[in-house]
Amino acid sequence: MKLLDTIQYPKDLRDLSEEQLPQLTRELREFIIDIVAAKEGHLGASLGVVELTIALHYVFNTPDDKLIWDVGHQAYGHKILTGRKSRFNTNRQLGGLSGFPKRDESEFDAFGTGHSSTSVSAIVGMALAAQLKGDLDRQHIAVIGDASIASGMAFEGLNHLGVMDANVLIILNDNAIGIDPSVGALKKYLTNVKKGTAKEENLFESLNFTYEGPVDGHDLDAVIKVLRKMKKSKGPRLLHLITTKGKGLKKAEENQIVYHAPGKFDRNTGELAKPPEAAQAPKYQDVFGHSLVELAEKNNNIVGITPAMPTGSSLKYMMEAFPERAFDVGIAEQHAVTMAAGMAAEGLVPFCAIYSTFLQRAYDQLIHDVALQNLPVVFCIDRAGLVGQDGATHHGAYDLAFLRCIPNMLIFAPMNEMELRNIMFTAQQGLNQPIAIRYPRGRGTSLSWRSPFELIPIPSSRKLVEGSSIAVLSVGHPGNIVTEVLTRLGHPKEIGHFDMRFVKPLDEQQLHHIFARYKSVVTLEDGCLTGGFGSAVLEFANEHGYSQSIKRLGLPDSFIEQGTVEELQELTQIDEEAITLCLIKLLHEVR
Amino acid sequence: MKLLDTIQYPKDLRDLSEEQLPQLTRELREFIIDIVAAKEGHLGASLGVVELTIALHYVFNTPDDKLIWDVGHQAYGHKILTGRKSRFNTNRQLGGLSGFPKRDESEFDAFGTGHSSTSVSAIVGMALAAQLKGDLDRQHIAVIGDASIASGMAFEGLNHLGVMDANVLIILNDNAIGIDPSVGALKKYLTNVKKGTAKEENLFESLNFTYEGPVDGHDLDAVIKVLRKMKKSKGPRLLHLITTKGKGLKKAEENQIVYHAPGKFDRNTGELAKPPEAAQAPKYQDVFGHSLVELAEKNNNIVGITPAMPTGSSLKYMMEAFPERAFDVGIAEQHAVTMAAGMAAEGLVPFCAIYSTFLQRAYDQLIHDVALQNLPVVFCIDRAGLVGQDGATHHGAYDLAFLRCIPNMLIFAPMNEMELRNIMFTAQQGLNQPIAIRYPRGRGTSLSWRSPFELIPIPSSRKLVEGSSIAVLSVGHPGNIVTEVLTRLGHPKEIGHFDMRFVKPLDEQQLHHIFARYKSVVTLEDGCLTGGFGSAVLEFANEHGYSQSIKRLGLPDSFIEQGTVEELQELTQIDEEAITLCLIKLLHEVR
Repeated sequence: MKLLDTIQYPKDLRDLSEEQLPQLTRELREFIIDIVAAKEGHLGASLGVVELTIALHYVFNTPDDKLIWDVGHQAYGHKILTGRKSRFNTNRQLGGLSGFPKRDESEFDAFGTGHSSTSVSAIVGMALAAQLKGDLDRQHIAVIGDASIASGMAFEGLNHLGVMDANVLIILNDNAIGIDPSVGALKKYLTNVKKGTAKEENLFESLNFTYEGPVDGHDLDAVIKVLRKMKKSKGPRLLHLITTKGKGLKKAEENQIVYHAPGKFDRNTGELAKPPEAAQAPKYQDVFGHSLVELAEKNNNIVGITPAMPTGSSLKYMMEAFPERAFDVGIAEQHAVTMAAGMAAEGLVPFCAIYSTFLQRAYDQLIHDVALQNLPVVFCIDRAGLVGQDGATHHGAYDLAFLRCIPNMLIFAPMNEMELRNIMFTAQQGLNQPIAIRYPRGRGTSLSWRSPFELIPIPSSRKLVEGSSIAVLSVGHPGNIVTEVLTRLGHPKEIGHFDMRFVKPLDEQQLHHIFARYKSVVTLEDGCLTGGFGSAVLEFANEHGYSQSIKRLGLPDSFIEQGTVEELQELTQIDEEAITLCLIKLLHEVR
Repeated sequence: MKLLDTIQYPKDLRDLSEEQLPQLTRELREFIIDIVAAKEGHLGASLGVVELTIALHYVFNTPDDKLIWDVGHQAYGHKILTGRKSRFNTNRQLGGLSGFPKRDESEFDAFGTGHSSTSVSAIVGMALAAQLKGDLDRQHIAVIGDASIASGMAFEGLNHLGVMDANVLIILNDNAIGIDPSVGALKKYLTNVKKGTAKEENLFESLNFTYEGPVDGHDLDAVIKVLRKMKKSKGPRLLHLITTKGKGLKKAEENQIVYHAPGKFDRNTGELAKPPEAAQAPKYQDVFGHSLVELAEKNNNIVGITPAMPTGSSLKYMMEAFPERAFDVGIAEQHAVTMAAGMAAEGLVPFCAIYSTFLQRAYDQLIHDVALQNLPVVFCIDRAGLVGQDGATHHGAYDLAFLRCIPNMLIFAPMNEMELRNIMFTAQQGLNQPIAIRYPRGRGTSLSWRSPFELIPIPSSRKLVEGSSIAVLSVGHPGNIVTEVLTRLGHPKEIGHFDMRFVKPLDEQQLHHIFARYKSVVTLEDGCLTGGFGSAVLEFANEHGYSQSIKRLGLPDSFIEQGTVEELQELTQIDEEAITLCLIKLLHEVR
């Protein structure tokens, strides 16, 4: 009988003797490896905090005591110990468990996470709430990684917490890596602390924290001991814990970047599952990464910037080819964007690669520092649209709407690899304004994508199919679904298809042509309908007095959970089936 | 002959002997006081950096060396010494000088500012640009206040800068106050450094900076000496300068909050100009501030939060009445919003007061921490719409568009004080979702505004005037312009007027009534047309197959400069005159 099987909730864990805990540690680690090997997911972060997870639920009285996992990649052990073990094999699947802590899912998930560096502020809010309610015994714990604590938002939280008389314990889970290795002065300082070479000054004590550490996060006894000690003190406290990402699976420890989210692997050897033999179209991120290197070889003014996503954005290729001209600034989207503005002001051509969902972190910088000064920063916005298993926290659903209202912005969505390459080529040829190029997670359409660069006129669109009465206007990769649908329908002569590609400015010449010739217009985007591309077309039609019927397809006004991209397209009615039905209905009307 | 009159540009300043500089200091200070006393503007910050301004341009080779003033309130002396003395009396006026540094205005303004804490990132970008171009001699200086450096964005910049081999000097202008007194652990640490009671540890040295200070920022010789010394060193450097906001005008030194931007005053005594005798309607911010106290007296769960604007938002009344339940978290919008989410998760009712333009700083937190978890945070968004003399960096032009695309958000714009009070009352009665209440800078409409609270159904709108063929749909305070226009036109029976108040969700019942009855619809908002309220009405009409003509009035798709609100309303065609002409034209069409 496994110990793990006896534990439904942390109260069961707290019935164990301390001597039993090492066994539980082993079992929990094995369980995580078993499931993630078969079902995929985030591996390394959770393996690194197995001891901490057990110690926290052993020492503290969860869920009454509040526990927040920053980002939440590392919360698998927490989920398994808090009533979700039997459902953990549904992790990240449609209708299954979320890959992140989620309030709806369990009372043990005190606060939903997904984006980094929110935990300090949230736990401060909870501690203040307890204080106001006169509950002075409740404990408040936030576990935050060294990459996340270096983000500005976490600093804001610490700066407030340091002067509060609140009952908060911050656990700095220092493994020297986020998804990619951590960077920055704070990381260097923490490294020096670990080596024992840091000067006597202690940064966290400067900010008024009671500091303990560094403590070996895999020494379960030591962790329990220090937690018990710190539980008794009052006011803001910080525990500096040293852990190893991927702990317990040799390959994951050795290659922490790959094993952050390794896909399927052999649970015994750690060997990654073989990719399918058939050649595949490249990922958009790789088209971006390789094309940027090609362009940078010819244009010395090009620089690349990523906030903590060299691997995920494929900026790593530029970092390898031109280390002096490519910058990973850490989880610091605000800094990334305004630094890019500073560079552009001095004549460089910064390509700033940010996921759509994380660009939300730099919205003011985009408006105030880039667009207002009309600086030609090139935003390469990856993971736009539906991202799949990461779910509601990570879909890039809002960018078209929140970018469209910003003056001076160009907004472009490539339908395929060549379009992405060509707009990147165009963007570095002396634009006088900022441009946002947004493309999805996943693969493009073509094996032979390294075509010669071509200039794209601004704005311009592509007439893919001329029709007689129904015009489908798509932006970006979902245009390929339309192509499939038209094939499936046998290329009805009534239906035309336009890859509009520019969301701002619209290709008004093409739109006038369309509205003059077609009876009915359908718009398709993989972004929110509210305020998005379809609304831009409505605004155009309104301004010019066109009264055709316009049917808008896109993401609904609700948060969309996790699932495969295909499942979520079906759910949001932008899949082949739904578009086919929509067009058949329109064909009936016009025939 | 005044020395100041001999100085057109910093090169003239650099021709002076050091012995002449104290006289120039006095003259520059007098000049600033003279102009601001008569023309209004930001006073205290610029008076505090007169010595620093002169020393910087004396020691460094501007504009070749790059100098960025964080926020830019303090750059009046800089403007006067860099070719703009003769035009300085047009400061903050339509067509005049901007109240902030601005790239278009002068090559000495290396980077436009307005919002805080951007200078570190921007100067890092510029220093990297110099490095890539092989220019290793150029100097890069950012001047940032102690309130601004505590913001997360500045920390992100420092964290990167600390590991860069770049030629950057950060000058921490420590006057212990932003607009309101600074707060937080960093402020406490800096205070201890000044008192000599801080421990030996130095926070900035932890982050790898060469640190000098604290230095008296009004000791011109000392400032010149330390700047010359630091000019010679390399790598990241930080100079900690102690200054007094309002220095040189006794009343401004004594009452730093009022004299941040005092309006007109007596240049000799500092005495503020008398307000007009006639009673005036209250400012919206005060209606918010006083009403919140009224509500908090009855509802113990209400808390108030402001990021560094207790005076500007009038949260100060709540801070005075319930010091334990009102929080100024400093310039930390991200923290403010997620802390509010943490509080709401624990059953409190947080009222988070943020200016529209600064809410852009917390956009991700709004989406990811508040709306996604559907937490009932009440956002009181002040300075929405046109703000007047602060100009392009500060207009609250985008909020309706960037909020509208977020699922779960309620968006409400009160047309007057009673509407604001009632929606605040409604919002604290157990909403199950977040709400954004947005209102403008300036005054409401009524002297007797302390009416009993009334519940507002969600959603609902107000039919102010029934008409026969033209329906004007307004949101928020601009509805009062429509009322004026209708009076001016003699209340034509054709025109109806609806205060729609909810931008999300729309009052669809009312809209169906309107589209069923009226031939023509006009929408009016003081926000951007792209994606705003008018677009919401287009989306509604599109969805329900209404084909009436819809004319949308609102802010154009361009950045709007400074001027009085009235001037800017005229410029953007949402003033009485423009609306009158629009309605007369429509009347001709329907009659």
